[in-house]
Formats: sequence, structure tokens, C-alpha cells
Amino acid sequence: MKLYSRLAMSVLSLAFLCLSLTPSTAFAADMSEDTETCIACHEIVTPGIVEDWQKSRHSHVSPAEGLAKDKQERRISVSEVAEKLAGAAVGCAECHMMNRDKHSDSFEHNGYTIHTVVSPDDCAACHPVEVKEYADNLMSQAYANLMANPVYAMMIDSVNGSHEFDGAVMHMHASDDISNADSCLACHGTDVKITGKETRDTDMGEMEFPTLSNWPNNGVGRLNPDGSTGACSSCHMRHQFSIEVARKPYTCAQCHKGPDVPAYKVYSVSVHGNIQKSVDKEWDYNAVPWVIGKHFTAPTCATCHASLVIDQNGEVLAKRSHRMNDRLPWRLFGIPYAHPHPISADTTQILNKAGLNLPTELSGEPVSKFLIDDQEMAKRLKAMQSVCLGCHSGQWVEGHFARLDKSIETSNHMTLQATKILSKAWEEALAEGIPQGKSPFDEAIELKWVEQWLFYGNSIRFATAMGGADYGVFANGRWVQQKNLQEMFDYLKFLRVSKSEKP
Amino acid sequence: MKLYSRLAMSVLSLAFLCLSLTPSTAFAADMSEDTETCIACHEIVTPGIVEDWQKSRHSHVSPAEGLAKDKQERRISVSEVAEKLAGAAVGCAECHMMNRDKHSDSFEHNGYTIHTVVSPDDCAACHPVEVKEYADNLMSQAYANLMANPVYAMMIDSVNGSHEFDGAVMHMHASDDISNADSCLACHGTDVKITGKETRDTDMGEMEFPTLSNWPNNGVGRLNPDGSTGACSSCHMRHQFSIEVARKPYTCAQCHKGPDVPAYKVYSVSVHGNIQKSVDKEWDYNAVPWVIGKHFTAPTCATCHASLVIDQNGEVLAKRSHRMNDRLPWRLFGIPYAHPHPISADTTQILNKAGLNLPTELSGEPVSKFLIDDQEMAKRLKAMQSVCLGCHSGQWVEGHFARLDKSIETSNHMTLQATKILSKAWEEALAEGIPQGKSPFDEAIELKWVEQWLFYGNSIRFATAMGGADYGVFANGRWVQQKNLQEMFDYLKFLRVSKSEKP
Amino acid sequence: MKLYSRLAMSVLSLAFLCLSLTPSTAFAADMSEDTETCIACHEIVTPGIVEDWQKSRHSHVSPAEGLAKDKQERRISVSEVAEKLAGAAVGCAECHMMNRDKHSDSFEHNGYTIHTVVSPDDCAACHPVEVKEYADNLMSQAYANLMANPVYAMMIDSVNGSHEFDGAVMHMHASDDISNADSCLACHGTDVKITGKETRDTDMGEMEFPTLSNWPNNGVGRLNPDGSTGACSSCHMRHQFSIEVARKPYTCAQCHKGPDVPAYKVYSVSVHGNIQKSVDKEWDYNAVPWVIGKHFTAPTCATCHASLVIDQNGEVLAKRSHRMNDRLPWRLFGIPYAHPHPISADTTQILNKAGLNLPTELSGEPVSKFLIDDQEMAKRLKAMQSVCLGCHSGQWVEGHFARLDKSIETSNHMTLQATKILSKAWEEALAEGIPQGKSPFDEAIELKWVEQWLFYGNSIRFATAMGGADYGVFANGRWVQQKNLQEMFDYLKFLRVSKSEKP
Repeated sequence: MKLYSRLAMSVLSLAFLCLSLTPSTAFAADMSEDTETCIACHEIVTPGIVEDWQKSRHSHVSPAEGLAKDKQERRISVSEVAEKLAGAAVGCAECHMMNRDKHSDSFEHNGYTIHTVVSPDDCAACHPVEVKEYADNLMSQAYANLMANPVYAMMIDSVNGSHEFDGAVMHMHASDDISNADSCLACHGTDVKITGKETRDTDMGEMEFPTLSNWPNNGVGRLNPDGSTGACSSCHMRHQFSIEVARKPYTCAQCHKGPDVPAYKVYSVSVHGNIQKSVDKEWDYNAVPWVIGKHFTAPTCATCHASLVIDQNGEVLAKRSHRMNDRLPWRLFGIPYAHPHPISADTTQILNKAGLNLPTELSGEPVSKFLIDDQEMAKRLKAMQSVCLGCHSGQWVEGHFARLDKSIETSNHMTLQATKILSKAWEEALAEGIPQGKSPFDEAIELKWVEQWLFYGNSIRFATAMGGADYGVFANGRWVQQKNLQEMFDYLKFLRVSKSEKP
Repeated sequence: MKLYSRLAMSVLSLAFLCLSLTPSTAFAADMSEDTETCIACHEIVTPGIVEDWQKSRHSHVSPAEGLAKDKQERRISVSEVAEKLAGAAVGCAECHMMNRDKHSDSFEHNGYTIHTVVSPDDCAACHPVEVKEYADNLMSQAYANLMANPVYAMMIDSVNGSHEFDGAVMHMHASDDISNADSCLACHGTDVKITGKETRDTDMGEMEFPTLSNWPNNGVGRLNPDGSTGACSSCHMRHQFSIEVARKPYTCAQCHKGPDVPAYKVYSVSVHGNIQKSVDKEWDYNAVPWVIGKHFTAPTCATCHASLVIDQNGEVLAKRSHRMNDRLPWRLFGIPYAHPHPISADTTQILNKAGLNLPTELSGEPVSKFLIDDQEMAKRLKAMQSVCLGCHSGQWVEGHFARLDKSIETSNHMTLQATKILSKAWEEALAEGIPQGKSPFDEAIELKWVEQWLFYGNSIRFATAMGGADYGVFANGRWVQQKNLQEMFDYLKFLRVSKSEKP
Repeated sequence: MKLYSRLAMSVLSLAFLCLSLTPSTAFAADMSEDTETCIACHEIVTPGIVEDWQKSRHSHVSPAEGLAKDKQERRISVSEVAEKLAGAAVGCAECHMMNRDKHSDSFEHNGYTIHTVVSPDDCAACHPVEVKEYADNLMSQAYANLMANPVYAMMIDSVNGSHEFDGAVMHMHASDDISNADSCLACHGTDVKITGKETRDTDMGEMEFPTLSNWPNNGVGRLNPDGSTGACSSCHMRHQFSIEVARKPYTCAQCHKGPDVPAYKVYSVSVHGNIQKSVDKEWDYNAVPWVIGKHFTAPTCATCHASLVIDQNGEVLAKRSHRMNDRLPWRLFGIPYAHPHPISADTTQILNKAGLNLPTELSGEPVSKFLIDDQEMAKRLKAMQSVCLGCHSGQWVEGHFARLDKSIETSNHMTLQATKILSKAWEEALAEGIPQGKSPFDEAIELKWVEQWLFYGNSIRFATAMGGADYGVFANGRWVQQKNLQEMFDYLKFLRVSKSEKP
């Protein structure tokens, strides 16, 4: 019998081996009592998210367990976890009751003080380094950078506002909050404030809730009711908060697929994107640290822009950073020209000679005072290239970045030509824009000018930077850029002859 | 030895355990003799589909076995299966010999009377509820709704017809059957009729077959040789008829990806679409019933529009329905304005005050008589929201749908402005359209008007409804909508000055 | 104890069984000593590609082992392998030291003579048949076919060159090498030459390397430093060279997704593309030979255009061919009209009556002398249809290809109308093009003409050929084709009235 039991043990341990070939973990932290209470009702009223959370790492690993890992393997950056958080799984109560005094959206809910909007400051209890880095990231200021810039405000009115044709002329009305929240601010983030209280009829009877303005929203620069900005859940989707999802390019694609910033579209026709789509079922997107060649064989967005990347010898190719601009010398996204990255994440203070809140002049000259200098650019370029060099030779990498320099130069040049045509139209009073103190975003020729840089200039530069040439030629790139220019040239002539037709 | 064999049993059962980690089933229905005969030849002449079918559920589950399941787990909706069908797998003979007398495409084939075109009425032998629901679905009438509407007929001629420049003016010729089948009707369905017989030289010698008009086709509203309409195989692809495929968004994308109805493009930049793409390898797309949070952690098209969805407590969030409009108060697809859903799946009877077969006036006013009322709209909204509430709070859901109301209002308003400009062009005889009794779809300014609602209005509303804001702004949404309007405004002026140039 | 060990064996063999459920292989060729030396340093300096290669078939199968397989299962086409290559894995040294005397890019590197650019001639040591076939493939001549054609040269200057608005007129400057390499030549291939030597500071100290022009590049028609053309790594990505990746459509999409040649976009809305995306996790993309229905249940690009496809009875449906045109009667890609395939892969000799290097006249008439005849077209059509017939009936297949004939006819007709409008503009001196001996690619109305065939004509024909109707109607097809034509018609009028405005 003794033999039998020893063999049975072997069999069992083999069974365990087999089962453990599927992703699993040795962790099994229990829920806190508070979270248990939440779940008792919420597995009835919002069953989907409870199940979703139960598949998360948060649901079965306590902060203490997370902290016990080797430094490079840690997913939390706090050096010590508050005692009451340390031992339990990270559940409903841990996040939705965090920092309750700072939250203007806190309310009484079945005997607990909770809040709806979990903010970066809440996440900072365990992830302080990431939250701090992210605060220096352009994205965290995406709300004010857009809404507090008078130039962009004019564009928003054009895009989201109401236009009216009265039989003779066009009129424009300012945009409204709902449309803005449904459009630009879906990505940039809304201003979420408490606007009152209301009683709702729920599955558990009548209950009172605070009402939130501009809700729902998960934009990257959201203004939260606790005074913080940003939303970790933009990329770390509720309620699994999966690192796998954040590392996949589909997350970035949510806001970076349109023609203004077509990063995902470019990636999808690059060699990197092809390999990712073709064989990523063999990759390990959950591993920390992330080992080049072993866990993945081509970079995703996260690899180049955010993740800690090491090689199989333990050498660090890139440090983790949630300040995405750390590896970005240029801001390819031209407004209206590509330029060195802004020094501060808050770009509302940038002012060019013409008095516009833009990082370049209309001639393309960068407003250097607010932008990083050559030394910082070189440092950031080196940080990016360190990732490239994990697979590519020095000559390869230099050749690649020489093309990027050229692409920035030539696409900026093509923006300048469009600007010259538009300026001519303004000069001849064929359109009313900056010289007339009017919006440069509300007449057809102006909108063609915008597409020259916002769509085509950006597309070309992204296509070069990420090696997705197919997108940068015919899809929305060089072909369209020169076609648009020729059309603007003709448009000028058409406007001239139809000028007398102006009502 | 006894010990050995007991241990061997353990080992074997463990092996079974390991193997059974891959999807399997306890079913093993045999083929009917008729189907065996079919396969004997067809594994030689069309080996691909035979192998494909062998991977299907149909190939190894008999209707009787399907019927023996608990009601919520059943994939067939018949209450009793005809005896001759009950015991065997659902093979070639079972479907291609079904209802032979109703099929004008029945023909003699090696001693059997078979038909090529398997229709919804054939599928109804086991799936009658789905077939009946589908008959009330707009899609099932997609052929007549398009082809029998004189307004759309003019558009089809513009799109598929032949145009001719004679050196001075443009001429237009009506479209032909082949081009229509290759274009609009690929999705809408063709009219499949028997046009004669022909002898073909096959691997098995000379054989006679009926010839089918407008074949091949799998459009959703196909007219079948047995008098039925629709094609289950539009979404349940032959010959696996997999529920997994039907539940994946790529199936819907076949017809819902273009700029006129960009549902898939919107989905792909939504949080839901991101999660689906990122982690659906962990989902179970084959489970019936489909448990929210357990089998999937974000909805696909099917989840919100068709599937039976329950929670882990067995509560039904949404009943299965192949009448997709059951959860749709609004028809976002504007022709030319978004409007309450039509009452009947057959929309050919809808007539507006102007005598056009359109569900709204050119001013946007809905033709209420043919459209569902507020009460029905509220009921359908509630059915849709019940799915949302599986994961989202009441306030979240209300905020979301308030945006949809606004988006419908503002995009309809922008369509109205374009209509006013076009009306001006018609009024000034710069183009010939409805007032002149001419096609509103064959001059450049008219085509710009169409894009205002068919592309941009629709894109904006889909983007709001499905939370894919990125698509609704720059990709093909609000940005383009206002640009197109400004261009139409200028176009009016250009047409005026070039009027004298008209030949 | 004897019993114990026998049982232990069972347990172990079971463990092996479990493990072997994951893809594995019985091969285990060792690296050559030379490759070991390479890897000793390169696992430090380029760790990503070393790991990547270690996941490749090349890393653990020797040519001799590959050759020992049954003929249909072989992945190499050489009949005998040179002795020094036969026994070892195919590593760094085997490829980067191959044919060293032919390589002008050979250089001394730590005691070895290696080259950076591995060429088709290097791959031919084991894969000679594929290399030979590929040399007859249009793609292999993609560099010269583009760059040595004076007509295309004008287009390249328009697209990649610099344009300048001087306040009155537009000027155009020729394109530069870097921009060309970053644009058209990214897919077509660059001219890679040795331009000198340089010393670089590496992780291993200072080292000397040859400098390569127009590097990096993986274009399909690359001119290599050994005199060969093409790059196997365009589709067989370094350093796994995976057949799985080459067979997936994402590889082709790198260069065939843009509006000029939207094969991937069409595929993604076809039934085939839907099935592939939905269930290809169950497929075996690595199997050789590739069995229809068993290893895949819908074709990818490779299935129809390149792969050896057999059925489960061992019957060959299609022979492997790297001369992709073997199954292509028509060249759907219209320049400017679709036409029978060119006879030779080198198309630089093609000359039409007007003296342009184009395969058709501007009227659409094919320049038959350089194009395959009806008999060859019929042969190629049959080769393609043999794949279709693996799943579809004869009538289905005929109906499908009848639509393609019609689609070619009608889209060519629509190109002709656009050509007539443009000719009128040239005739009236509203634009300067071919009759004036000027570029037909540098004025707005000319660029609209180009899109008529390059974008819309091509899209429509691809949509028909691959059954992706959704793309061929509104996305970039028939709708846009007729709209563009109407706009050209109006544009002619606008140009007339603004002619006096010409500076």
C-alpha cells in the first residue's frame, strides 16, 4: 500500500504538472470582508464585471504577495503596502473605498462610503511610480491641453458644433458638452464632477446616488472628482486590469487608429505588426519582466513606448516608463508641424510669436523655449534605439532613423506649401482666418489645409517611424498629400472666380 | 499484477483527463445511409467541404440528441423531430433533400432527388423559431426592400450602371444583373431561379444539372427556388454552421464594415472590441447558453443583437432572437435621416408625403405611420439595456444612451443642412433632381449630399451607439461631416459660375 | 523495485505524451561550430534575433534531415545538399557566409568572411526551385519595373518629390533616394550597394563594416550586392522564416492593403477571410503538404496563389509555385486598365503605340505582343479553378468567374470615361499632360484620373475576384468610381471658368 500511495503521489503530481501547463499561479489571497459584501449583491446586479474581476490577477494576489517577488518581477512599485491592504486580494472595496476623504463623489451605499470613479491617485496606493510617471506624460493633461487652448477650441466648435445654412450663408454654433464628451473627449477625457443626487430604483430597492457630469468616460486625461487627472483604466481595462491587454496593440488602437494619429494602421502593415498578428499566440504577454525573443518576437506599441524590456541574460534594454515621451525625441503629431517634444506635459502655456498656443510658427519654426533641446532629444533617441538594437544592427538602426529625419523634413515642407496657399486665400479675402481674427477651421479650403498636416503629414511620419510604408504612400500618405496640395492650388482659383458669387 | 492494472487505469484516466482538456463531446451520431452515399463521391469531388462538415456539430450530433438537452442548452427549437431525421447526424442528404417538393431546383442526381440551394425553410425542420424570427427581421426582406424601391433603384443604377462621357455631357445606362449580383446583392441577396438545364462533364462522367440564375449568392435576403427568402448561411457559414463563427464579429463585418454601415470598424476601436481582440482566446464562443463574464468578458455583435445571454445564476439578461430589431428602438442607418424602426420587415410600402418610398421626409420628419411608436421604442431600448446592465451601472447606461439621443439629433441636423444646400442647387437648376423628376443620385453635388448621411451621419451614430468614438470623429465622422458641408457650400458657388459652361 | 521502475516509465511516457501535445519535432540537429561562434557574441549584442532563430525550424533541422522526408513533405527542393551544409542546423554562418565570393558586401568579421544581405541566391543552396520560380514572378523585378519605366518615374516624382508654391504657380522637384526608399521602394525593393567602409563602436569594441546604400530594406525586388534580385525575407520573415507566417494573410497585407492594391481589405470582408479570422486557431499552418479541409477550412492568399494544396486522398489540387502568376490569367492591377498578364516578369520592354511603357493603350486596348494569349490565360484560369473546386461546385465556380469578366469589362469602361474627360482637359489646355509632353501625374484633375483606375478600378476588380463585395461598393469601389467620374466632369467646367485666372 505504501508503494501504491507513493505512485499515486507521482500520478497526482503529474496531473498537477499537466494542469499547470495552462497559465496558473500559486497565489490565492482571500477577499476582504468588505469586498465579499460588495460581491454578494453585485454578482446579482452586475454579474459580468464580478466574473471579469474574478479572472484578474487582482482577485487572487494580495499586495503583500506581489511585494514579495524579486524586484524585476514586481508589478507593484510601492515599497511598503499599508497594513490593511497588504493581506487581501485587491477587490471592489479596496479600490472603490480608497482615499474616501479626497473623493467628492464619495457616498453612502449600504453602510459603506464608496465612490464610483477610481482614479490614478487611488491606484497609487500600490503603483505610485507609474502614477507619478504618467502625470508627466502628455496624455495625463489631454483634457486641458485640448480644452484650454483657444486654437483648438475653434477646431472643436467646427467639428462638434452645429452648422446652419440659411439659404445664403453658413452659420456656426458652439459645440455642446454631450457632443464633446461623445467625440474628442472620449479619448482626451471629460470633466467628471458631482452635479447632485438622485434616487434610483434598483434590483435592491430605491437607493440614492450622486450624479456625475460627463459620465461615462475613460479618457486618458479625465478630470476626476478627487482632483486627480487621467484614468489608468484607459489602457488597463476594468475589471481585469490585464497587462496582456495593455501590451496588445488593440488597446492603443482605441484612440490611435484614426487618420489623425494612425499608429495602429501603420503598425498593422509593418513587419512587426505582421509577426505579432501571425504568431502572438505563442507569446507570453503576461510575463514580467518581458524578455525579448523569448516572450515576444516582435515589438508591440508597449515594447517600444512603455514596457520594461530585458534580454535573456537579464540585461535591461529599456526601463519601464509610463511617461511615454521618455523614448520620443520628436512629437511627430504635427500641430501643424512635427517638432521636438514639449518640455512640460502641460502644453497650455506654449505661445508662438503670432500669439497662438501652438508649438510651432505657421512657418514651421519650432517655439524652442517650450520644447526639449538637442541634448534631451539625443538622450531620448538613444533610449528608443536601445530597444531596436535588441534585434537590429547599428547600421540598420541608423538607416531607419535617417529616414525619419528626412520624412519629418519633407512632410513639414509639404505642410508649409499648403500654408502658403491658405495664406494667399486669406490675403485675397477668399477665406477669413487668422489675419482676420477668425477661425482657421471653418471654411473648406482651411479644412483641406488641416488635413495636409493632421492627416497626411502625420500619416507619413508615423509610417516612416514604425516601418509601415504601405500606409504612408497611397493609403493616407504621400500620394494624398501632393494631391491635396494640387487641389488646394486649384481651389484658390475656383474661389477667385466665384468670389463675386459670395452673398 | 492487479496493482499494476489499477495503476495503469489511473494513468489511463489521467491521460484521458489530459486529452479531454481539448474541446470534445460525448455525441457520436452516425451518418444516414443517404449521406454516406453522398460522401462516398464528394470526398473526392469536393473534399474541402466534406472535411469541413466533419468538423461540424451537425456531423456528430443527431437532432434527437440535441433535443434531449435541457431547454436552455438546446440549439434546436423544434419540439419534436420528424422520425426519419431524429437519429442520424445532420448530413448532406438531410438538408439537400429536405422539402424536395417545394424546391423548384430539385433534380435527379445519382438516384436521389436533391437541390443545391438549402433555404431557411429547410433549416426550419429543426430550427423553426429562428427561421420565423428571422422572417420578421429587416434582413430577410433585403432583396425587395432594395430592388422594389424606386428611390433605391435610381441609386443602384448610378452605382452599378454604366456612365458615358460623349465629349460634352454624361449619360447613364441602367445596371445589369451580373453587376448587381456582384455589388449590392452580394449582401442583400439575389433572385435565384431555375433558368434551364445543362450537362456538365464531371469527375464522375457527364451529368445533368439545373442552371441557377444569379448564383452563387449567400445574401441575407436571397430569394430561394423554394419560395422562401434569406440564407441562414450568410452568418452560419457552410459547412460547419458554427455558432462560434456567427458570434464572432468578423461574420457581421462581411457586410457591415463599409463606410455606409461601419459597425465593425466602430467596434474595433471600442473598449469592447479591444477586449475581444485581446483576450477572446480565453472565451468559449460555443457555449449555449452564453454566460456573461464566464464565457466572454466583452460583448460581440451577437451578444447585444441576437444571442441568449444569461448570468452565472441562470438569470436571463436577453432572450435569443433572430429578429435583430427586437433590441433596436432606432434605425440609425439614415435614409436619409435616422428614425424609429419600421414596423414591418417589408419596407416597400413606406411612402412619404413627397411620394418617395422613404421612412422620412427630406426635411427629416419621420413617416410615423410606418414606424414603431414611443412605447415600442421604450420596450426595445429596455431589452438592449438589460444586456448593458450585466456589467454597467444604471447611471453609466443612461449616460450612454443620452449621448445616442444627442448624436441622432445633431447628425440629423447636419443632414438637413446638406439637404438645404442641395435643394438650393435644384432650385437654381444647377443640378437636376427630385423637383425635376430626375435621379437625385447622378450628379457630383448630389453624391456629396448622399455621403453626408449615408457615410458621415451613419458613422457618427454607430460610433456613439457602440462606443467607438475614434471612428466617429476623424475617421469618417464629425470632422468629415462638417468638411463635406463646407465643400457643398462652395460647390454651389462653383456650379453657379460654371453654369454658363454647361453644354 | 522493478515494478516501480516500469510504472515510473509509464508515468514518464505519459508525461512525454502530455508535453508532446504541444507542437514539437523529432529533429535535433546541432549548430555548426561557426554558428556557435556567431551566437556566442550575438546572444549578447542582438539577443532578440538569436532567440527568434532558436524558435525556427532552421535551428533544429539539418538539410539532410529535411531531404530524408517523403517528397511531398519536403520543405527543400534541392536534390542533394552540399556535404558541409548537410548535417548541421541552418544557422547564422550557413546563410551569412554562403557564396562569399559572389557577395560584394562580404567583409572580415572576427576571423570570418560574412555578408549582411542574405539573398535568394544564398537560399538557393537548399531551395533552388523556389528561387528559380520566383525569378519569373513579377515581384522579383519590382525594382526595375518601377524605376526603369519613364511613365512611373513621373509618378514617383509627383508622389515622393518636393512641391513648391511660389505665390503664383506650383513647382515640382525630383524625388530623392531616401524618400523613395521610405515610400515606393519599401515594397518594391531598393538598390543595395556597397558605398564604402566605416568603423563602428560596438559592444565588442571598434569594428569595421561595409556601408550599404538604401539600407535597411526587404522589398520583393531588392537589388542585392551579389547581383541577384528579390528578398525571400519579404514574406519569410527573419529569423524564424516561418511557413506559418508566410501563409497568413498579414504577410501579404504588408504591401497589399493600400487602396491601390487592396487585396487584404477585400479578403477581410470575404467569407474566406471571415472563416480564417474566426477559426484559424484550429488550423495547422505549418503542415507540408497542406491538406484542404483538414489543415485549413478556408483559403488564405497562399492557398490560392502559391501553396502546394492536396486533398485527404493525396490528390494534388495545386502545385506549389513561387511564380505567383501561374494561376493568374488577368493582371487585375490596371495600369491603367486590367489586362492579360505580361509574358515576362521584366515589363520594362513593354511599349504601347503612344510610345509609353504601358501594357495597354490609353484607350484600354491591350498591347498584346507583350501579354499572354488566350490559351495561356485559359491554362492559368484552370489552375486557379482547381483550388476553388476543392470546395465549390462547377456551376458555382463558373458563376464566380463570369462575374470577374464582367467586373473587368465595366471597371475598364469607367476608366475609359475618366480618360476621355482628362483628354478633353488636355485638349483644351486646362491641364498639361501626355499631348504636351508633360507629366500626366502632377495636376489635380490628372490625379483624380489616376485614382479612377489605381484605386477604384483595382478595388472593384479585387473585390469581385476574391468575393469581398462590401469593399467593392462603398468602401472604395463602384460608388466612389462613379462619384469621381461626376466630379471630374464638373472639374472640367470649373477649370474652364478659372482658366483666365491662370497666372
